[in-house]
Amino acid sequence: MKIVALAGGVGGAKLVHGLIQCLPPDDLTVVVNTADDFRHFGLHISPDLDTVCYTAAGLANPEAGWGRGGESWRTISEIATLGGPDWFRLGDLDLATHLERTRQLDDGQVLSDVVLSLCKAWRIKHRILPMTDQPVRTIVETVEHGELAFQDYFVRLQCRPRVRGFRFDGAERASPAPGVLKRIAECGYVVICPSNPWVSIAPILAVPGIRPALTNKRVLAVSPIIGGKALRGPAAKMYSELGVTPSALAVAQHYRGLATDFILDRVDGQLEQEIESLNMRAAVMETIMQSVEQRRRLAEAVLNFLKTA
Amino acid sequence: MKIVALAGGVGGAKLVHGLIQCLPPDDLTVVVNTADDFRHFGLHISPDLDTVCYTAAGLANPEAGWGRGGESWRTISEIATLGGPDWFRLGDLDLATHLERTRQLDDGQVLSDVVLSLCKAWRIKHRILPMTDQPVRTIVETVEHGELAFQDYFVRLQCRPRVRGFRFDGAERASPAPGVLKRIAECGYVVICPSNPWVSIAPILAVPGIRPALTNKRVLAVSPIIGGKALRGPAAKMYSELGVTPSALAVAQHYRGLATDFILDRVDGQLEQEIESLNMRAAVMETIMQSVEQRRRLAEAVLNFLKTA
Repeated sequence: MKIVALAGGVGGAKLVHGLIQCLPPDDLTVVVNTADDFRHFGLHISPDLDTVCYTAAGLANPEAGWGRGGESWRTISEIATLGGPDWFRLGDLDLATHLERTRQLDDGQVLSDVVLSLCKAWRIKHRILPMTDQPVRTIVETVEHGELAFQDYFVRLQCRPRVRGFRFDGAERASPAPGVLKRIAECGYVVICPSNPWVSIAPILAVPGIRPALTNKRVLAVSPIIGGKALRGPAAKMYSELGVTPSALAVAQHYRGLATDFILDRVDGQLEQEIESLNMRAAVMETIMQSVEQRRRLAEAVLNFLKTA
Repeated sequence: MKIVALAGGVGGAKLVHGLIQCLPPDDLTVVVNTADDFRHFGLHISPDLDTVCYTAAGLANPEAGWGRGGESWRTISEIATLGGPDWFRLGDLDLATHLERTRQLDDGQVLSDVVLSLCKAWRIKHRILPMTDQPVRTIVETVEHGELAFQDYFVRLQCRPRVRGFRFDGAERASPAPGVLKRIAECGYVVICPSNPWVSIAPILAVPGIRPALTNKRVLAVSPIIGGKALRGPAAKMYSELGVTPSALAVAQHYRGLATDFILDRVDGQLEQEIESLNMRAAVMETIMQSVEQRRRLAEAVLNFLKTA
């Protein structure tokens, strides 16, 4: 039962962690958004890849969802003393990842090779792939500041500006990382993790070749909107600012023509029939994944739902 | 009594620290070797500038002579876990300097501006200047490995290869950093600190314009060779490998035609007359600077010697 999962940051990483608990290494490939990547202090930082990998390796900070557990902050505190920018919280352990990734990239390796090498060091056996080895960068079009680089919007300005739209700079020139299309072609099911549809999943789908590869596949999406809100991050706020009432239904409409299956949370049970009328198989599940066990349970339920199609 | 000091790393930094204790900020300019600078993990690292600045600011590790006091090593230990190179020991506090310097350089600032901004943050009032804002890189020609980048020779291979010679890549295209020639023109005396003549002082003198600016100046050199040995680093080993018996006399001969005054250590007192026969004023002093007070005392003795010319 080969699965390809598409994932962004924290929410996506949790379901990935669940899938890892349910599937042998050969049966799961995770394709991760890299349009949040940026250069900061000369380093190549890949926030979503790191969140997915740290979570998969059991190294993540369980409270924050991002970053490393047992993290310390000596370097970034010292940078603040020097008058440097400290809005992007670089932990001392996390910095090692950025430094080593930058070193390998400067050495001429492509990002997917670097991810493979880091995954080996972290003993992650399931395959994690960046969506592309080329630079694709999310630009957030905002009311107050015009165009913003994603991390400026997301971390520095804490998602306060109102969004008008998005573009994925470089996407048209990018190609899927080696293995992405092959793994999609070989898989039985694609799982769109409960990540932000606008800025985590859309960039993956914007890489030429990926969206067409999903046609005629069973594609299951898990709603990141629960009771009209995102558990984390600006997904619900983005729907509102773009004139759409945020709801699991809005997410299902978003994925219309792409998703064949849709998972919504218990609290949104009343939307099930309306989502099925979009020509999707819908299922109501407990989708909040606070514990490692809850991640496994949701992944198991998703896999059972797909098998009993 | 305006002084310009030429300095490399640890030994030079100690005398600079002494001079800072004796002179008001307007009266001392330190010109620092940058030919040891290199890119590592994408970061611009300036070992001699950092050693001079950390020492001047009282932030240096008093035992090692380089790096920060109270340093920790979380990031570099984690890099080792990832299989990355850990031969260059990057401390967590030290990393903040490299990150912030790299950020400012990537932002379009020149190195001398970056040094000024860091010195402000460290409350260093005396002026510290890189020898140049352009890249100059020491290449060590070795018997065993051919040409080596300086840090490969110095740190990774711990100075084990035998040297045949040196070149300073980029020197011919470099120009002195803003202020260097002006400060030399305005000063009464130039002090060549007890730094390695081959790889700390020679690169400074190789920057076009600096050596000619020293002609007709009182130039005092302090021997880094004491009793035929260097207190630290490969200076004595280099003299031997290049066919010269290492001694304070060899250093004085090295600086012949440039230095007008020469300071040698007590243990080398017997060489005083021979050095004076090179047409230099020589003086014997206690040149070992273990304590902050010893640094001040040597600086004071040097300044008195110059004044009583």
